[in-house]
Parts: sequence; C-alpha cells; structure tokens
Amino acid sequence: MTVVVTGGLGFIGSHLVDAYLAAGHRVRVIDSCVGAVVDGEDYDADPRCTVIRESIEDYLDAGNGFAGTDRVVHTASHVGPASILARTGQLGNDIVGSAARVIEACLAADVPLCLFSSAEVYGRSGMLDEKDSIVVPTTYNTRIEYAIGKTLTEAMVINSRHRGLRAIVIRPFNVAGARQSRAGGFVMPTFVQQALADKPITVFATGDQVRAFVAASDLTRFVVEHMDGALGSDDVIFNVGNPDNAITVMELAERVKRLLGSASEIVRVDGRSVHGPHYAEAESFRKVPVLRAASTLGWHPEIDLDQLIMMTADYYRTRADKRGAHAPL
Amino acid sequence: MTVVVTGGLGFIGSHLVDAYLAAGHRVRVIDSCVGAVVDGEDYDADPRCTVIRESIEDYLDAGNGFAGTDRVVHTASHVGPASILARTGQLGNDIVGSAARVIEACLAADVPLCLFSSAEVYGRSGMLDEKDSIVVPTTYNTRIEYAIGKTLTEAMVINSRHRGLRAIVIRPFNVAGARQSRAGGFVMPTFVQQALADKPITVFATGDQVRAFVAASDLTRFVVEHMDGALGSDDVIFNVGNPDNAITVMELAERVKRLLGSASEIVRVDGRSVHGPHYAEAESFRKVPVLRAASTLGWHPEIDLDQLIMMTADYYRTRADKRGAHAPL
Repeated sequence: MTVVVTGGLGFIGSHLVDAYLAAGHRVRVIDSCVGAVVDGEDYDADPRCTVIRESIEDYLDAGNGFAGTDRVVHTASHVGPASILARTGQLGNDIVGSAARVIEACLAADVPLCLFSSAEVYGRSGMLDEKDSIVVPTTYNTRIEYAIGKTLTEAMVINSRHRGLRAIVIRPFNVAGARQSRAGGFVMPTFVQQALADKPITVFATGDQVRAFVAASDLTRFVVEHMDGALGSDDVIFNVGNPDNAITVMELAERVKRLLGSASEIVRVDGRSVHGPHYAEAESFRKVPVLRAASTLGWHPEIDLDQLIMMTADYYRTRADKRGAHAPL
Repeated sequence: MTVVVTGGLGFIGSHLVDAYLAAGHRVRVIDSCVGAVVDGEDYDADPRCTVIRESIEDYLDAGNGFAGTDRVVHTASHVGPASILARTGQLGNDIVGSAARVIEACLAADVPLCLFSSAEVYGRSGMLDEKDSIVVPTTYNTRIEYAIGKTLTEAMVINSRHRGLRAIVIRPFNVAGARQSRAGGFVMPTFVQQALADKPITVFATGDQVRAFVAASDLTRFVVEHMDGALGSDDVIFNVGNPDNAITVMELAERVKRLLGSASEIVRVDGRSVHGPHYAEAESFRKVPVLRAASTLGWHPEIDLDQLIMMTADYYRTRADKRGAHAPL
C-alpha cells in the first residue's frame, strides 16, 4: 500500500510512518514542519518514502490530491495544552479547515481516511466510552476550543459517510514514547527530561489528576493492523489508550524519579506560571479510556508504564529535545 | 452608525436591517442570496442602505473589509433543519470558516461583532441557561454538526477577546414572524401557510415537543438597543427568546387552526417522510430559554404567541413564500 501520513514528522505521525515502513508499505509524508520532532532525513533516504515539506492545506490548495494512494492518516494538528495557546480564537478554524480539505480530497480520490481526534473531546472526568455524550463547559478557553474543533471534525467525518467517505476516527489517550517533545506541555517527556537533568520535576495543580498513558507503538499497531477491520465494523470512533497504565500525575513524578534514580525534587506549581495566564488544565480530572470498540477488533495495548518511562528516558539520554526551545525544562 | 449585516436579505437579517434603518442608522447588507427572503430592491432604493450581493467569504476574500463601519452583525448561515441536510459533512466547516473570516476582519478594522449562534447548541432538553454546559450526543447527524459548528464559533469569538475582539454572541430561540420561509423546515410559517390554504397541518413526531417562539421584532430590539450594554456587561452569550410563548407543537397546530379559522385537518407525520431520511428532530425536546443575561440589561420580549401567529398570517395572506419551492406545503 501507499499511505499518506499528514503530520508525518510529528510525534504520532513519525511513529506511524515507521510502523507502515516496517510493515512493508510505501509512505508519503506531508508535514508543515511546525511541530516536527524529526528532521525527516532518514525518510528522505528511504526509496519507499517521500517527504513533502508543506502544510496539508497548501499541498491540497495547490491542486495536489490523494489519487494513487490507499490510505490517508490525518495526524497533522496543533497539539499540546501549551502550544495551542498561541492560536487562541483561530485554533478551531485551523483544525476544522484542515480536516475539511482532507475529507474532500479523500472523497475525490476515493481513499479511506483515518482521522485523529482527541480524548479531550469528552470534556468530563471518568471512564470514557465512545458511546458517551460529550460535554462542553461554556467557560470556553483555548483547550475547550481545541476540543470542540476536534469534535466537529468527528461529526464532519461521520456525516460525510453519507457522501461516500470511508473513514474511522481515533481518540488517542495520552500517547507517550520516544521523540515526544516537552514543548506543548506534555507531562511524560517533561518529567523524564527533568529527572535525567536532576532538575525539579514540576507537578501541575494538585497532582491528583489521573492519566492513562499508552505507548506510541501500541497506537500505531492499532492503525496499521486494524484499520481494515475498523472500516468494516459497526464502530467509527475508536478510543486508543491503556487503562492499565492509569496513574495520578504525582505518582507518575515519583515513579519517574525512582526508575531513573534521579536526585530531582518534586515540586507543585501552577501550570500558568510556566505556560502563561491562559494555560488551562484538562476538563477530564480522571481521563481513562474504555476500550470497547478497539478491543472488539482484538487490539489490546501491551506496553506498561515502566517500559514507557524507560523508552522515553532511553531516547532523551543521548538526544536533546528537538523542540525544547519552546518550553522550559 | 454604519452597521454591516451579513445575511441581511435573510429572515433574521432583513428584520435587523429594517430595525437599524428605522433607528436612523446606515446599513451595508452583504448576502449571497442563497437564503434570501426579500429581493432587497427596497434597500437598493434607500440612500442609507447598500446591498452587496455576494457571500461574506467572497466579499472578504476579495480584500474588502469593515473599515469605516461601527458594528458587524453576522447572521449569514445555513439555517433550518431541512436546508442544512444538503451540506452534511461540510456544514461545520462552512459555518466555522465564515465566522473565522468575520472575526479576523472585525479585529483588523477594530469593529465590534454580534455573532448569531443558535439555541441548538444546548443539545439537551429543558430550561436552558447560558451558564449551563453544552451536551453533544455522539449519535452525530447533520443537525448536531450544525450545533457543534455554532458552538465552535462561540468559543472562537470568546477566545478572540484575548486578541482584542469586542463581541457578543446571541443564541436565538425559535424566532418567528413575517417573511420567515417554510423552506428549511420552520414550523411556524409551515403551519400558518398550511392553515391559510386549508391543507393538512403536518405535526412532526409526537407533537409533544415544546418550543418557545419569539418575535423577530423582539430579537432586533435586543440587538439594536442593547448591544452597547451587552458589550459592557460581564456576559458574552445572550439567550434571546420568549419563555412565555412556550407551547407544544401539537397545541401550536391547534392554535393556528383556530386563530385563522382554518378548515385544515391536523395530521401527525414523520419529518423524514417530508424532508428525507437524514432529517432529524432537535435534541431539545423541551427548548425554553432562561433569560438571565438579556433581562439583566433590561430587555424583555413583548409579542405574545397569538400576535406572532397573526403577524405571520397577515404576511402570507397576500404573498407567496419566496423560497416555498424548496419545501412542500
């Protein structure tokens, strides 16, 4: 197959590119380089891979399309609770406009689409199931604008099936692993890099908030191996996460410190003192997926939390964070 | 003042144009004519009014803006549970893309914006208050895509205040009055026109769903007289409706028939048999506004339901429905 991966130089995107190449497929990466965590030179050197360094909007607006390809995986997006702040008020249109162009191009070329939504859509706390209603708090902040934008792209994909679109939607829950940048405000690479540098590990809010981390490799295995099954199933939306890895953020800080033998102290700070006054915590105090739809297809996550911490640490022991300049350590 | 009214040839838009002209202001109408209920010739003839017959997207994309104007009221939108069906899967991007351009143009010209959202955003039944959380059922249909699109425009407006935007958002609840077309699936002009023609009055679903109708003239009075107060208040989102006019749809059918002395029979039908298989009822079985924010500013609706029925009937006694070809009688 030839697979288009938008955002293929980003964290989730690059793991997908690797997984498709490892499975013997050809890949066309389209990436604006805004959130790139790899430079893509390895992909340039691979004859099965083409890297197009422009935004998917520019690529499609220039008259290019997806003819001759077999899958489009749309991961390109602004991501991260800190990164999105610079786009407040425009973010929703960015996300929706990009997805709209991708949907139309998939319809035009009759290529199936895998759209990346977000676990942020739920807007509430608890064990979150794809069948549950979504809640939008009308306190509206940038993070909620992001969530509504992703929700709207889900509706557009699902309604476009009446126009012939074949598509699935993934709601990833706290994906982690090698290459994830602390830029954007992601907690796992922040804690791991702080621990490796023996700098204070900065826990936001009370530290009692619960997150369930899933390995990028578990996520990519779902997309690469189960997309056909997903397209043929009754479900369209798939939570992808690992409830067995649920942990409070304070416990994560302690686990990272212990596993990495770090001398870091653990400190509680207000996220706004790090990322500015408009930074907001997630609406989900406890954000844990129910894996109803994905497990029906036979997919289960495999990488446990300690492995995930070590994989992240192994990566950053020998490398700097490519986007580290965008976030304090 | 010079006021820009997008969608100014539509139902709500044309009532706003009339109200601004009556209050002594100048008006610039920008309207694609897709949903026009007036031809605009009266406005062309008024030296205080300019009519630009193109979409707001085309108008702004051509390099025009809002410099030299004092207010922008953005009413242009696909509307009506039947009309929106043709845009399923694209509707969300239409709504968001249009609002995004208007927001940027208001920022560029430093002109305050009044954005029209919808009571559909609530996604649930009951007495609906601006402070309430919004619910999005993940059954996703075109009507829900519309609601999420409107919700996202609210978030974009509110977050854009951090970029300097001065703006309010209106959530209108079942506006009715002269010129409202039955095209789109609006119940009041449908029932009134059916009663005037002695044709069956078609009640969808059980007829027990509750709607609270507000007069277009009450709505325009809020916008024309209270926008300054609204901009200076702590509220940004304003429900505009009339809870005193709450009535079940079956009772509305009976009331219309009686008031107009019609020989029509009242029949229950499935909306899908009229508007096609993708037609959906509102998520709000009982859709009644709490007028917390608007009443704080001293605004109260005045036109009661019988007056509203008679105003609609008086209009259609001597005129055909300009857009009637788009919906069966």
